[in-house]
Amino acid sequence: MALRASNPLVPKISRSGYSGEVKPARISIRASDNGLKEKKRSFSGFSPSKEDFFRLDLDLTVRDLERLFQQKSGAGNDFSGRPVRVAYQGVRGSYCQEAAMKSYTFCNALPCNQMEEAFKALEEKTADRAIIPVENSIDGQIGRNFDLLVRHNASIVGESIFPVNHCLLAIKGCEKTSIKRIVSHPQAISHCKTRLEALGLEIEEVSNSAEAAKILSENSITDTAVIGSQIAAKEFGLQILEQNLQERNGNFNRFFHLALSPATFPTSSSGNSSCKTTIAFSLENGVSDLARALLIFETRDIPVTRVDHRPNRSRPIRVVKNEEHRVGYFDYVFLLDIEGHESDPKVEKALQNLNEVSGFLRVLGSYT
Amino acid sequence: MALRASNPLVPKISRSGYSGEVKPARISIRASDNGLKEKKRSFSGFSPSKEDFFRLDLDLTVRDLERLFQQKSGAGNDFSGRPVRVAYQGVRGSYCQEAAMKSYTFCNALPCNQMEEAFKALEEKTADRAIIPVENSIDGQIGRNFDLLVRHNASIVGESIFPVNHCLLAIKGCEKTSIKRIVSHPQAISHCKTRLEALGLEIEEVSNSAEAAKILSENSITDTAVIGSQIAAKEFGLQILEQNLQERNGNFNRFFHLALSPATFPTSSSGNSSCKTTIAFSLENGVSDLARALLIFETRDIPVTRVDHRPNRSRPIRVVKNEEHRVGYFDYVFLLDIEGHESDPKVEKALQNLNEVSGFLRVLGSYT
Repeated sequence: MALRASNPLVPKISRSGYSGEVKPARISIRASDNGLKEKKRSFSGFSPSKEDFFRLDLDLTVRDLERLFQQKSGAGNDFSGRPVRVAYQGVRGSYCQEAAMKSYTFCNALPCNQMEEAFKALEEKTADRAIIPVENSIDGQIGRNFDLLVRHNASIVGESIFPVNHCLLAIKGCEKTSIKRIVSHPQAISHCKTRLEALGLEIEEVSNSAEAAKILSENSITDTAVIGSQIAAKEFGLQILEQNLQERNGNFNRFFHLALSPATFPTSSSGNSSCKTTIAFSLENGVSDLARALLIFETRDIPVTRVDHRPNRSRPIRVVKNEEHRVGYFDYVFLLDIEGHESDPKVEKALQNLNEVSGFLRVLGSYT
Repeated sequence: MALRASNPLVPKISRSGYSGEVKPARISIRASDNGLKEKKRSFSGFSPSKEDFFRLDLDLTVRDLERLFQQKSGAGNDFSGRPVRVAYQGVRGSYCQEAAMKSYTFCNALPCNQMEEAFKALEEKTADRAIIPVENSIDGQIGRNFDLLVRHNASIVGESIFPVNHCLLAIKGCEKTSIKRIVSHPQAISHCKTRLEALGLEIEEVSNSAEAAKILSENSITDTAVIGSQIAAKEFGLQILEQNLQERNGNFNRFFHLALSPATFPTSSSGNSSCKTTIAFSLENGVSDLARALLIFETRDIPVTRVDHRPNRSRPIRVVKNEEHRVGYFDYVFLLDIEGHESDPKVEKALQNLNEVSGFLRVLGSYT
């Protein structure tokens, strides 16, 4: 009996209960009994924030957000006119290829089956940059890519945040009415649930949308459409029947641009004002010191814009003796995004301070 | 042409680049230039922690840790002698079933294909408890189960933390020398990599180890072994050729026990001293207020033992106008574990304070 599925072209996705993120759930936050409140500016014991916050209203369109988030393209400026060799995770037609080609307009995009290969390509200098997806605003962090970041010596030299644009792709010339079935990765299906329900067609989950798009094209399948990227349409000569099938505004992917060496920046302080630094560290006294670690930045007026963690694989369990008994806690590597360049004196001082309570501390990169 | 793999019995796992946690990477933390330092007890501007921490040494065995972490079994005490009906995620033979049966010795364990079904079973009162896996100490959070927790009204009424015991399972009577191939979920394969390499056999990834164990048994396959749980051996009449194949100490799974109503506790303060409370909240001013939120607990001597976050799906993007331009940040729901019961006056006061800066705040449960 074959334990391996006999047609491996479009394998079904994992359905195991413990693998994590395969089929993300939709969530709608419920207010507690305390209710959803209007924004409050006061905070007992603290002065109000100086920053002026805007609520994200529905009239702020995806195009507006794209304009806000879109990074300046690397455009190969530091590569003396030759194309930037950009390793990306996935096959041709994937969203990661799309990110690579949007981020570096003059680039050779190099597909990598596994993310590890992209790091290897950097280390072996067969690629100048690697693009890795690190977060989706609806589904959360891509934990294993953060793990790889901490494990490898590559530096973050840039980021791109792109709105997700789930397109309905079909064979050129094929009528929309002939479509009987829609296939895609469960994450894309989850993002487009309402629109798909309205279409009332058969839905099938596959492990790789770009691969499904390729099969569609190569076999001229006319009764099936794939939810995939714009780049998949271009790569495989498909037509885009519909764009932006996703049901939520605010659905963005965040990608890091990696290089072997840290990014170079203008030396003037103004040149670094919109710079962001990502750091990884462990806390010798555990999670309970996180407040103190954050205050190191807070007290120096360095905004912390993201707080994340991954398991501390070198010491996954911390055993503590308190007054009554010994208890155990999971232990973590923390990841912070802070505003400012690592060479900014106040950031430098904060990092020195953080180092005093860290088992290890590493700057993963300063970037815009 | 079939887009669906024709033998769906043991589908191959998802290999898509963007689905997240399917094949976790092994990580070994590298020290920065600052080096791995000895534990420091001083912290500029703060008094040293009172707690006495122990390093986890290799002589602390899995058995010791199990003793430390093992929770008192519910044992059906509050169900008047009838078995507790415990819904769990996964099929028979899964690690989640094992957790259910270890946690409630007198129980009817009810398999659920999707985690949503376990929540539904609680809400429809066909189950008294649901067991959900929430974290692995090596691979990290199971984000979608935290999402479900925030979305549903179920309360956390207990937790179990069990060491992972990956067993090599084969047909009874089958000689170890006859095994040519080992199949399992990629997570288990990743946990056992060194031992598997030493065995030098063919390795195959499948989406569901328990299902593979069942197929092995039903088809009396003698050339294949499965890495799975002890309960899978029992459920499908397999022999355990080896136990504890995982290569790391400190590999633990954490499960929450859920019920429709909050847990009841002894009223004496001593009865709540080892109690833990998990809360979910959003921050009106975003991540930069997290330090302040944590200080609410810190200043009241309430230890925060875990800080996590999930995307804030009701507002995934926060747009901020700073001095120069408008920028966007991803926005989150934060999840904290704090020590103490929600009805403890100092916890109650801290939660009132936190509520002042939270868009929403919900106590997910107080439990031991």
